[in-house]
Amino acid sequence: MYWSRFYIPTLKEAPADAEVISHNLMIRAGMIRKLTAGVYNYLPLGLRSINKAAEIVRQEMNRAGAVEMSMPMVQPGDLWLESGRWQHYGKELLRFKDRHERDYCLGPTHEEVITGLIRGELRSYRQLPVNLYQIQTKFRDEIRPRFGLMRGREFIMKDAYSFDKDDEGADKSYWNMFHAYDRVFSRMGLRFKAVSADSGSIGGSFSHEFMVLAATGEDSIAACRTCDFAANIERAPVKYQGKPAAGGKDAPLAPPAPIEEVRTPGTHSVAEVAAFLNVRAQDLVKTILFVVDGQSVAVLVRGDREVNDIKLKNYLKAQEVEFMEPEMVKAVTGAEVGYAGPVGLKVDKLLADPEVLERDAWVTGANKTDHHLKNVNIPRDVKNVDVQDLRNIDEGDVCPQCGGAIDLPRGIEVGHVFKLGTKYSEAMNAKFLDADGQEKFFIMGCYGIGVTRVVAASIEQNHDDKGIIFSPPIAPFEVLIFNLDPKNADVNAEAGRLHDFIESLGLDVLVDDRDERPGVKFNDGDLVGMPMQLIVSRKGLEKRIVEAKDRRNGERAELPLDDFADAFVQWKAKVYAGWNI
Amino acid sequence: MYWSRFYIPTLKEAPADAEVISHNLMIRAGMIRKLTAGVYNYLPLGLRSINKAAEIVRQEMNRAGAVEMSMPMVQPGDLWLESGRWQHYGKELLRFKDRHERDYCLGPTHEEVITGLIRGELRSYRQLPVNLYQIQTKFRDEIRPRFGLMRGREFIMKDAYSFDKDDEGADKSYWNMFHAYDRVFSRMGLRFKAVSADSGSIGGSFSHEFMVLAATGEDSIAACRTCDFAANIERAPVKYQGKPAAGGKDAPLAPPAPIEEVRTPGTHSVAEVAAFLNVRAQDLVKTILFVVDGQSVAVLVRGDREVNDIKLKNYLKAQEVEFMEPEMVKAVTGAEVGYAGPVGLKVDKLLADPEVLERDAWVTGANKTDHHLKNVNIPRDVKNVDVQDLRNIDEGDVCPQCGGAIDLPRGIEVGHVFKLGTKYSEAMNAKFLDADGQEKFFIMGCYGIGVTRVVAASIEQNHDDKGIIFSPPIAPFEVLIFNLDPKNADVNAEAGRLHDFIESLGLDVLVDDRDERPGVKFNDGDLVGMPMQLIVSRKGLEKRIVEAKDRRNGERAELPLDDFADAFVQWKAKVYAGWNI
Repeated sequence: MYWSRFYIPTLKEAPADAEVISHNLMIRAGMIRKLTAGVYNYLPLGLRSINKAAEIVRQEMNRAGAVEMSMPMVQPGDLWLESGRWQHYGKELLRFKDRHERDYCLGPTHEEVITGLIRGELRSYRQLPVNLYQIQTKFRDEIRPRFGLMRGREFIMKDAYSFDKDDEGADKSYWNMFHAYDRVFSRMGLRFKAVSADSGSIGGSFSHEFMVLAATGEDSIAACRTCDFAANIERAPVKYQGKPAAGGKDAPLAPPAPIEEVRTPGTHSVAEVAAFLNVRAQDLVKTILFVVDGQSVAVLVRGDREVNDIKLKNYLKAQEVEFMEPEMVKAVTGAEVGYAGPVGLKVDKLLADPEVLERDAWVTGANKTDHHLKNVNIPRDVKNVDVQDLRNIDEGDVCPQCGGAIDLPRGIEVGHVFKLGTKYSEAMNAKFLDADGQEKFFIMGCYGIGVTRVVAASIEQNHDDKGIIFSPPIAPFEVLIFNLDPKNADVNAEAGRLHDFIESLGLDVLVDDRDERPGVKFNDGDLVGMPMQLIVSRKGLEKRIVEAKDRRNGERAELPLDDFADAFVQWKAKVYAGWNI
Repeated sequence: MYWSRFYIPTLKEAPADAEVISHNLMIRAGMIRKLTAGVYNYLPLGLRSINKAAEIVRQEMNRAGAVEMSMPMVQPGDLWLESGRWQHYGKELLRFKDRHERDYCLGPTHEEVITGLIRGELRSYRQLPVNLYQIQTKFRDEIRPRFGLMRGREFIMKDAYSFDKDDEGADKSYWNMFHAYDRVFSRMGLRFKAVSADSGSIGGSFSHEFMVLAATGEDSIAACRTCDFAANIERAPVKYQGKPAAGGKDAPLAPPAPIEEVRTPGTHSVAEVAAFLNVRAQDLVKTILFVVDGQSVAVLVRGDREVNDIKLKNYLKAQEVEFMEPEMVKAVTGAEVGYAGPVGLKVDKLLADPEVLERDAWVTGANKTDHHLKNVNIPRDVKNVDVQDLRNIDEGDVCPQCGGAIDLPRGIEVGHVFKLGTKYSEAMNAKFLDADGQEKFFIMGCYGIGVTRVVAASIEQNHDDKGIIFSPPIAPFEVLIFNLDPKNADVNAEAGRLHDFIESLGLDVLVDDRDERPGVKFNDGDLVGMPMQLIVSRKGLEKRIVEAKDRRNGERAELPLDDFADAFVQWKAKVYAGWNI
């Protein structure tokens, strides 16, 4: 392909609403253009990258025995009433009526449609297992769409759905998909981690998220430095240490001193209280107040920890967890916000993270404006405490699997595998006839990959201050040839010959044949990020060489024109090795 | 691929709502399933055929220099306000509001989006021409969706949009696409015709429709038996013959006799009047009454002709043409419906097809219940008649291009090329800077192919009472191998070897390895319609042959196993030759 016949509108500046790197670079590289909030045109370069990612996904799905089909974007409301999600999905489900006033929605996911299809078609255990997938456009009416393709409203997803006759088969289907995902992201040349995940509103039995590692990721991962443990921080269990040995710096006081009330005027945050009392944050216990399904709930955690509201929600099997409003905090504690404490607190439920039992004396709020308590001993001074792992795991915590040290890398979720169980088959009465003559509910799994998202995530992971650095398998073109002198017949002919030769190797190659200065071309080339760059110039031709640059590390090489085929293949192998592919 | 690992739910009976052949067969062959009115799941077999058609379209678009991109299905209302179509499109444009109460629609077509994109990006004549296309899902909220993929609400379309700096360039872009379409449908192995077409509500300068010929097609085409003239009957001009020579059977009376009123009690239709008076339908002139944009309009045509309301609408530059309601007919003619005539008729506009001047005496209505007039001579007896080509061309009419005979084959529109001109660029103020320093509006063209529709149309054209007959290029699999004895190790192994060999030739091959009776397999095989069938059986292995059947004409051959490669390649060439590919 030649740049002058393609359509790559690069920009010097991205619009102000491009808040994240991938969004900024994809706009500037002419890959995407916003149509409306969270809805993007995929320009030719962007579409090529998306299609390459999709094709890798397709090949690995097929290899895993999944069968491709395609379901509609417009879905009838009655199916969603059956599953119960019409009532519970919230406003991300964009609902509308057609000209005959019938209820429809734009599909954010396709469990209802596939379950409705299968229940009319698959009747015997002998037809199982089945795994059907599609690569298709979805719509979720996000309240605040942003970050370009990272969190759009309209996006392309691969979603697969497996149907098994028993749990054993469903587990096999699950791990089959898990391994296919592993191959997908490995083939894409990305650094990623499969992490144990909370299954969120889709519900079901267990699940893993596939995270592309990137400093800018919106998810925190708890990953062990030693073993293979990795979990979304939302659900990573904390391994508690028990009381420190006597004599250590956090050792218990012996015997615990009585509670002492101290004035702490104008201190509202943990940091302010700790500074005022000249103690550390981890010498305090915070009392965080929630309203959970209408009940008042207090959670005690160490001053330097964060309450994990997913753990809280799961433990209480709650629908809704919200921070308590300031007015209600005042009513419950009898004090201004910032002085809540467990001693004498009247709430419907009092929960504590086990860590607050690891020491015998803490600073807590006094339920009295401008006052805190010292020497609070939880078991001694607070009754009816329900002790439960309710905090986020932290850097330096020990691995719950091997005892090693926990790191908290950040990641971007690009894939998700769920074992759904019978959630949808029961709700929608989807059954098959088993070998024993009994009708049984299908055991389902569902498996998603954000195809447009993975392209954005790859850019979050791989870029520099000049632009995108594409891994070869999802680059729009693997090779960019700079034709530095398109008006010179020799340079032109050589660029064309290289284009044709490299294409004959099965690679996609773009020649920048525009009538522009070399500086403009080099800048645009680094911006659009093709992994291999070749420079064809008059000077090079005189020396009988083509200059080559590895976009990833900037390393340059000179490839002799008279032995170009071999030299290029060797150089390419080196570039690919840098990507571990 | 193996049938047992694929998903092909064939059915003996199609549901009652499958009114047309392609709908019926696609349901029965397990290609599609209805989700809701006009919205279908594409099952694996259906998707394969759709994807094959899409890939042929893609290759020919790329070859023609068009560049692929992808635009969203969800479009903001404000763009449609700019073009004016928000106000005028009608209910086929499905409109809705998002969670923030902003207006959106599902894209039935993408002129607004592409024009909005280009006007912000393309600024110089040096960047022109550009032709951008996509293969993407559209939604049109048809009032009465039916016929499966022939007239769905959600469907896949290829739409391309060209931008040129002048008319000459726009014409070049137009014909470039025209020839690409010719290649697309030729490559698909379909019998088709490019016909000159009315451009309908999209508007613009000129256009052609590509029609797949099929007896069941909903469009009539006027095609010359001699030359290449072909037009949609909606816009085919009629070549008038002038008065017949004296002495012929339709020769004028000499001199014309005076008008004579005759009683014709209880005659309402042309046929009834003609029978009662013992004349032919073509001896009558019908007076058809319309309301056109609020005005009463009468159109005179010969008794055996049909008024062409598209010609009428275009000639009067009207927004709306409707038949006059019976009550109004009575008020205008002073008679019951069925007796309208031109003599003394009071309407806002009186139009006549030129054919009514070709004779000197006609039977017409008398504007008096149960009465007609004889010997009406239009120029003598009717004043203020505006004479204009206003009827449908008929079988036996002469070709307006060469004078040959006109046929009226039926067709299914699968492609449409439009020269749009500046309709959208003016409405949306999309300009570029020309070489002369002037800002000018882009000259646009748009070019559509119904990708899902072409698959259905191919089935309307190619089927028999046993099922679908796919042309090889858009067959889900080119070859179906019947493994008649999957429990026999030799038969199994041979079927597998043939599968692998044929796949190595670059063909897609499906092996029916199900544990079913041969009769079931043969019926299913003919139903799903793969063009080449091979039968592997114990008996065949003993004779060292594979039986081969050309699905199109049912011709059978025996391919020797010991020289299979050559024999198969020769047989395949013969099958393909039958498809003219």
